[in-house]
Amino acid sequence: MQIRFLDKVRRQNPLVHNITNGVAMNFTANGLLALGASPIMADEVSEMADMAAICSALLINIGTLRRQTVEAMLAAGKAANARGIPVVFDPVGAAATQFRRDTVERLLAEVRFAAIRGNAAEMAYIAGGAWQGKGVDAGGGAANAAEVAATAAKRYGCVAAVSGATDYVSDGLCTVAVANGTPLFPKITASGCLLGSVIAAFLAVAPEQEYLDAAAEACTVYAVAGETAAEGLAAAQSGTFGVRLVDSLAAVTARQVSEAARTSVQAV
Amino acid sequence: MQIRFLDKVRRQNPLVHNITNGVAMNFTANGLLALGASPIMADEVSEMADMAAICSALLINIGTLRRQTVEAMLAAGKAANARGIPVVFDPVGAAATQFRRDTVERLLAEVRFAAIRGNAAEMAYIAGGAWQGKGVDAGGGAANAAEVAATAAKRYGCVAAVSGATDYVSDGLCTVAVANGTPLFPKITASGCLLGSVIAAFLAVAPEQEYLDAAAEACTVYAVAGETAAEGLAAAQSGTFGVRLVDSLAAVTARQVSEAARTSVQAV
Amino acid sequence: MQIRFLDKVRRQNPLVHNITNGVAMNFTANGLLALGASPIMADEVSEMADMAAICSALLINIGTLRRQTVEAMLAAGKAANARGIPVVFDPVGAAATQFRRDTVERLLAEVRFAAIRGNAAEMAYIAGGAWQGKGVDAGGGAANAAEVAATAAKRYGCVAAVSGATDYVSDGLCTVAVANGTPLFPKITASGCLLGSVIAAFLAVAPEQEYLDAAAEACTVYAVAGETAAEGLAAAQSGTFGVRLVDSLAAVTARQVSEAARTSVQAV
Repeated sequence: MQIRFLDKVRRQNPLVHNITNGVAMNFTANGLLALGASPIMADEVSEMADMAAICSALLINIGTLRRQTVEAMLAAGKAANARGIPVVFDPVGAAATQFRRDTVERLLAEVRFAAIRGNAAEMAYIAGGAWQGKGVDAGGGAANAAEVAATAAKRYGCVAAVSGATDYVSDGLCTVAVANGTPLFPKITASGCLLGSVIAAFLAVAPEQEYLDAAAEACTVYAVAGETAAEGLAAAQSGTFGVRLVDSLAAVTARQVSEAARTSVQAV
Repeated sequence: MQIRFLDKVRRQNPLVHNITNGVAMNFTANGLLALGASPIMADEVSEMADMAAICSALLINIGTLRRQTVEAMLAAGKAANARGIPVVFDPVGAAATQFRRDTVERLLAEVRFAAIRGNAAEMAYIAGGAWQGKGVDAGGGAANAAEVAATAAKRYGCVAAVSGATDYVSDGLCTVAVANGTPLFPKITASGCLLGSVIAAFLAVAPEQEYLDAAAEACTVYAVAGETAAEGLAAAQSGTFGVRLVDSLAAVTARQVSEAARTSVQAV
Repeated sequence: MQIRFLDKVRRQNPLVHNITNGVAMNFTANGLLALGASPIMADEVSEMADMAAICSALLINIGTLRRQTVEAMLAAGKAANARGIPVVFDPVGAAATQFRRDTVERLLAEVRFAAIRGNAAEMAYIAGGAWQGKGVDAGGGAANAAEVAATAAKRYGCVAAVSGATDYVSDGLCTVAVANGTPLFPKITASGCLLGSVIAAFLAVAPEQEYLDAAAEACTVYAVAGETAAEGLAAAQSGTFGVRLVDSLAAVTARQVSEAARTSVQAV
């Protein structure tokens, strides 16, 4: 895999506006800083348009969703759309409550997303139809996750990334499988949330027609940084892993990712 | 001490709904994940009933209390009560302001708690009457903390846990003293808050008549994990301790806790 | 440099009320605890007056500003002013949005600050006039930062601290330059926010006529703790640095700071 965007992120230090949950805020900011991007966290509706004027990407994550934040998400999403800034959606717990289902529906209807990232259950809900409501144990595992990614991508005309032991990143025409990673990722909170923001940072430095490549590279860089961070750690050392992951995001190089990448591409 | 619930937590991975403060969110989520439970953080009133439908325990912590969150706490508490899900209360700074005193009163009046956990000053306020208003330096130390736990437990018909160098956990009939721990616990923020959530995870896998045992075991597991995390650390290494505590919560075994436990039981 | 306030902070454990952003909350609380102060985080308007009655300093940080929090900031600031408690202002992203510009204006008009701390761009905005709007790359670097500090201090009759590779702390009559620090500081989120709270802890134990000395000492203690934390770390190890900085804040001694300090004083 050719790594084309990582160094661009580091050179351009894109300002990424994150409307994210209270659990992920600090970890996301440190992760983006380590990677070379610049994080801003803000969710007051009255400053969303001004944020879109100075930022290069927007991340919307509904992890600890509040009613008033929904208005900020909509305002920020529309302002970013108006300026052509890529918007990434992380539909945390999308199907868990009626409030989240309603919010997800509104966001998908009113904001045009460049990419949507979630775990298999969340993305199956997003993909809708046959997938909807099957939940986390939707049966089938890897094969299904790839199909879920492709279905969601086609439905919303964007890049869809399904995170798991293997990540699947699709634009509805082809799907990239990223087999890198470590079992320590799901042992720390907000590791998926940070990946959503990392994808936003990569899209910020990519032209629109290369969003699939940029998102797949973001997932690969993140997964390889995780592998490096996990080296020599026991399965129980999730606290230490979280700290080392930040170190790794700063240290990881394009060459290292290129050599360690276990990625494959399939036509849908 | 026989350790009966730790492995059940790890096998059942109970989903614990936390309405907690902004300082404790990330640390609590990582601590619960390390322990083997699954954390959800959510405090929007309109999704509280739906959360009760999918969770196995609820933790209410008033650390960074806001007016609108009080309504979410009440809604979540009542929904959990209706479903028979254990609710744990952590009355952070209970007596510090009129707003907190009013909120504590409303929560105790309208929600039935399975357990209440706090430091000596907070629990003395909860226990009320003779204890109320004596504050942190309520004179007497250990002896008093045990009595405060028993008084609070009797008053609210629940388990009461008073955290300190020695923890006292009571159901009003007998009181368990847990003499494990490390002076590094009070040097990191949210260590008490995380313990409240750990108690919730243990109650999630215990039958109601064993809540005292489950809460006492939760305190012991947590204290022994802290002892292990502190091994070899200087008194000043609180940053490192916080990271290692998460590692320890994942690594600690029933056998290890059983051997290290310094607990004793007294009839009230 | 004579270190006169650090041991006072540790002996008196001042209670510092922080109205701060969601990114900085946990890190700020752990940093203050490590230093020897006691943190309280609260931003509900109805308990601000009660907080002022029990705290020794107030920190107002507008990092993740929300409309309702502005009212809490004003109420807390006025209550602290009425009681003679020092108030520190951290105008994060002061000029970034109209909402922040309006909020900064209201806070500066209605609250009397003992100290204002920010980076060069934020403080240039605060200093106003010729400095206003020049942004981060305002040309000139060190020389300008010192002038910005002096201008802001004179304009608001308080101590002004401009953070950077060298910090400049001024009361409008003289300016202290603190040349300690490490390039890892800007690589972790909330390192500036924590410094604002550390300044508040130092002002809490100082008489008003020594606020300049106390604030300059706070910056020096913090910078030296950072230098120590960075020892032996690679530039990429920002995750590890954040953990070690907390350790260092607990371990740093007056003697160590006194010997390592690279400070100089100039009349304005």
